[in-house]
Amino acid sequence: MPSSAVREQLQQAAQERITRLRERLERHRLGGALLSALPHIRYLTGFSGSSALLLVLREQVHFVTDDRYAEQVRQELFALEGLQVHISREPLKALAAALDGVSVLAFQPEYLSYGTLLEARRRFRPVRLRPLRQMVEPLIMQKYPAEIELMRRAAWIASKTFEAVLERIREGMSERELAAELSYLARQLGSEGDAFEPIVASGERGALPHGRASAKRVRAGELITMDFGCLVRGYSSDLTRTVVLGRASSEQRRVYQVVLQAQERAIGAVRPGVAARAVDAAAREWITAAGFGEYFRHSVGHGLGLSVHEPPALSPRAPARLRLQERTVVTIEPGIYLPGRFGIRIEDDLCVTTNGAELLTTATRELLSL
Amino acid sequence: MPSSAVREQLQQAAQERITRLRERLERHRLGGALLSALPHIRYLTGFSGSSALLLVLREQVHFVTDDRYAEQVRQELFALEGLQVHISREPLKALAAALDGVSVLAFQPEYLSYGTLLEARRRFRPVRLRPLRQMVEPLIMQKYPAEIELMRRAAWIASKTFEAVLERIREGMSERELAAELSYLARQLGSEGDAFEPIVASGERGALPHGRASAKRVRAGELITMDFGCLVRGYSSDLTRTVVLGRASSEQRRVYQVVLQAQERAIGAVRPGVAARAVDAAAREWITAAGFGEYFRHSVGHGLGLSVHEPPALSPRAPARLRLQERTVVTIEPGIYLPGRFGIRIEDDLCVTTNGAELLTTATRELLSL
Repeated sequence: MPSSAVREQLQQAAQERITRLRERLERHRLGGALLSALPHIRYLTGFSGSSALLLVLREQVHFVTDDRYAEQVRQELFALEGLQVHISREPLKALAAALDGVSVLAFQPEYLSYGTLLEARRRFRPVRLRPLRQMVEPLIMQKYPAEIELMRRAAWIASKTFEAVLERIREGMSERELAAELSYLARQLGSEGDAFEPIVASGERGALPHGRASAKRVRAGELITMDFGCLVRGYSSDLTRTVVLGRASSEQRRVYQVVLQAQERAIGAVRPGVAARAVDAAAREWITAAGFGEYFRHSVGHGLGLSVHEPPALSPRAPARLRLQERTVVTIEPGIYLPGRFGIRIEDDLCVTTNGAELLTTATRELLSL
Repeated sequence: MPSSAVREQLQQAAQERITRLRERLERHRLGGALLSALPHIRYLTGFSGSSALLLVLREQVHFVTDDRYAEQVRQELFALEGLQVHISREPLKALAAALDGVSVLAFQPEYLSYGTLLEARRRFRPVRLRPLRQMVEPLIMQKYPAEIELMRRAAWIASKTFEAVLERIREGMSERELAAELSYLARQLGSEGDAFEPIVASGERGALPHGRASAKRVRAGELITMDFGCLVRGYSSDLTRTVVLGRASSEQRRVYQVVLQAQERAIGAVRPGVAARAVDAAAREWITAAGFGEYFRHSVGHGLGLSVHEPPALSPRAPARLRLQERTVVTIEPGIYLPGRFGIRIEDDLCVTTNGAELLTTATRELLSL
């Protein structure tokens, strides 16, 4: 898809999401919404900077950022209907002037600090501010085709990065050097940067699900878990593979198969309408039956988009009503972590299709010996 | 300094900061404080994960994170006096049990979401919660010698990374490839990772102060601005250099000299007791006198530590009472951005000494032609 067509489609997606947000505000009899979560603002405007607020009113959309981003605004912002851009170091003051005729304004309680809320209440008086949870989340769980195309590309880069890094893994290199290779290769293959700081955890450090790459050197016989992600126009991928340096022990192979089969069960469960917690259960029951239940302590996966962690959380604690929809992109990443010994995690990215799921990541999931 | 001695000193720094926080709470007749800003929690506990809350009471310190980080807690947390660790997916519930005898608790209004505040109010009833702005900031503006040593190291790695990347810059390579080299070389030289996503902006993209590296290729005659940072035990450096590919035009050279001299003036102004805004003014007045005032629209610098942006902000809008202290680490980064043409920024890291400042970054500031 040519870049201008992608931009066109992303802009259309933003416009449609704003329309749906307005319908929701209407149902709650709210005159507008103040958005403060930056990834949500990016979904609705295209802006990728680190400072912005968005005010969605019935007819207009007011965007405000500071003067460091004046040029970036010109390059990035979608041509939305009724868009007004403000460049100001006092963003709430700039927005206050637009509130004529509004009596109640929604805000995002999960993403607005109490301090900023106080200032907004003062600046926006007599407009009342009312918390509206999960304001944007339902609008972004389903991705548009152009977004899926970008994520397919980000997942492809991650898969190719994994394949390429295998050539570079040597006994005695540090986890940090390996992380450097991942990050380097991903950018060479077209990633805009790391979707998150790469995790490289080897040997007993593999038992840390979120272990950052350290100065520890990789040794023969050790498992190495690599968890990293790429970015294409801000859209993420998130891939984890565990490989062995030299020959795997029979126990390592056995635990690997448990994780792999758990992952395949969860992947097999993904389809429109399935409960998020049922996808988690598909992997968790398998791991528990194999006797490793207490060593798998995180959720089986999460939504993916402009953020690496988005709804839906595929978690045992997800509400029963949270169900997967067509065109939602999720990761499936079961793991088993044996403290003081080793850890294994396997993660892929999937897009929910009409009747199942498309794997976006393509790297082999067999246990590779290097 | 051996690693165990560094850890010992960081732990002592944390303990002293907690003591000073308690004195402050005492003065405000507050029974304790709920901390939610992750970098602040890291200063006070050593924990580097992405989910935690900290409750500082008169005698005890309660730390809570979720079970993904159970192992990391064991490795990272300082042995603080009266420390109690809770591992829970319901952090506020876990902390509520510790509040016996507390009547008023401070919280950080800048870093606590309204949603979490509501939950805390409910869970902690009948304890009242009261906002206390800038709760931790004054305690971290002065760094301890071990912290300065880590930042000196992070600054050294950034300087060496810049020197090494010069060998790799070729006409026709993309900004993104150049960012990949920066990130790679930094890790090879000992950085834990990128302190922030490297900025590479060439030619007219140089006029974007926060331009991310793009697919644009660098061409002869273009200026290239590289802004990147390294991490050592979580402590950051932040370095910017602008170089020219081929020969600089006389205008490019002239503007470069204005920025360089502005930076030298600001560096010359840094000493204990000077107002933060006076350091900004030293650079800004020079740039304005040269006729480029409207093209320098950001602050001249910022504090540096476990976060890349910390107080004090060296800004024209800084309050007059905000003054530099000995052992504060700051960056000085004036720039001139000519829209549609080119941009120049030069940034170094300094530690305030008894009577002036020590430059932590060591790379040459002359305009290099590649």
